[in-house]
Amino acid sequence: MEQRVSLITLGVGDVARARAFYEQLGWQGQEVEETVFFRAGGCALVLWGRDKLADDCGLTGDDAGGFGGVALTHNVRSAADVDRIIVTAERAGATVSRAPAATFYGGYAGCFTDLDGHVWEIAHNPGFALAEDGSIIIPEFGG
Amino acid sequence: MEQRVSLITLGVGDVARARAFYEQLGWQGQEVEETVFFRAGGCALVLWGRDKLADDCGLTGDDAGGFGGVALTHNVRSAADVDRIIVTAERAGATVSRAPAATFYGGYAGCFTDLDGHVWEIAHNPGFALAEDGSIIIPEFGG
Repeated sequence: MEQRVSLITLGVGDVARARAFYEQLGWQGQEVEETVFFRAGGCALVLWGRDKLADDCGLTGDDAGGFGGVALTHNVRSAADVDRIIVTAERAGATVSRAPAATFYGGYAGCFTDLDGHVWEIAHNPGFALAEDGSIIIPEFGG
Repeated sequence: MEQRVSLITLGVGDVARARAFYEQLGWQGQEVEETVFFRAGGCALVLWGRDKLADDCGLTGDDAGGFGGVALTHNVRSAADVDRIIVTAERAGATVSRAPAATFYGGYAGCFTDLDGHVWEIAHNPGFALAEDGSIIIPEFGG
């Protein structure tokens, strides 16, 4: 597992309202499928509905202390890398909350929670290239 | 506010145990004052005691749904930048959980929660240079 965070996803109650907040701070986002991407140097900050994010990670959105509303995504170059990292994480004590599987966007990903319940998604997304230095490349979606 | 995340801090129950977990995944960290820093491209992942992190952000560590155990730090080049961004955030609807003030490490920082309770720290830390491109430069601490 390379030492990199690719996306910082914040689960929010209202995507448009959250986007407006960050744009008031000076950030410029672009939206695709009710998800807002902000370029952030070598990584990207993402706003997505809190319940959708929890569901996508194999969790419930209940505020019972399990899921804190944030997930960290680590993008890799192949589906095999996803499998390898999820296995390594489980061996290290992680709980796999979503077994690796094909995703709706044509990629492949799995999720685990670390020892403190922090949520990680390990993802291969052919639509998001990785630069030679590992930086994620968010395409122009328009909108 | 430039479009950048400098540190991704994960509040953990046991720093040594959490560090061991990430090192089992292949990450290499360095520790200073019971805080572990992992370089992560243009940003850094940080492990710190959950209660200390909450306290440092002007919050309690209670698992009542307010604080999810993650804080995002945005480093800037001056104390004046900290003040400016905290004011802008508050105007945009953020709740300032810790007014800007000098920090124990010789810097200056303030914290706010966004509309969904996500925690941001805006920090000027003379010990962590920012590259021309905004990437944070974590020095060698040894250990």
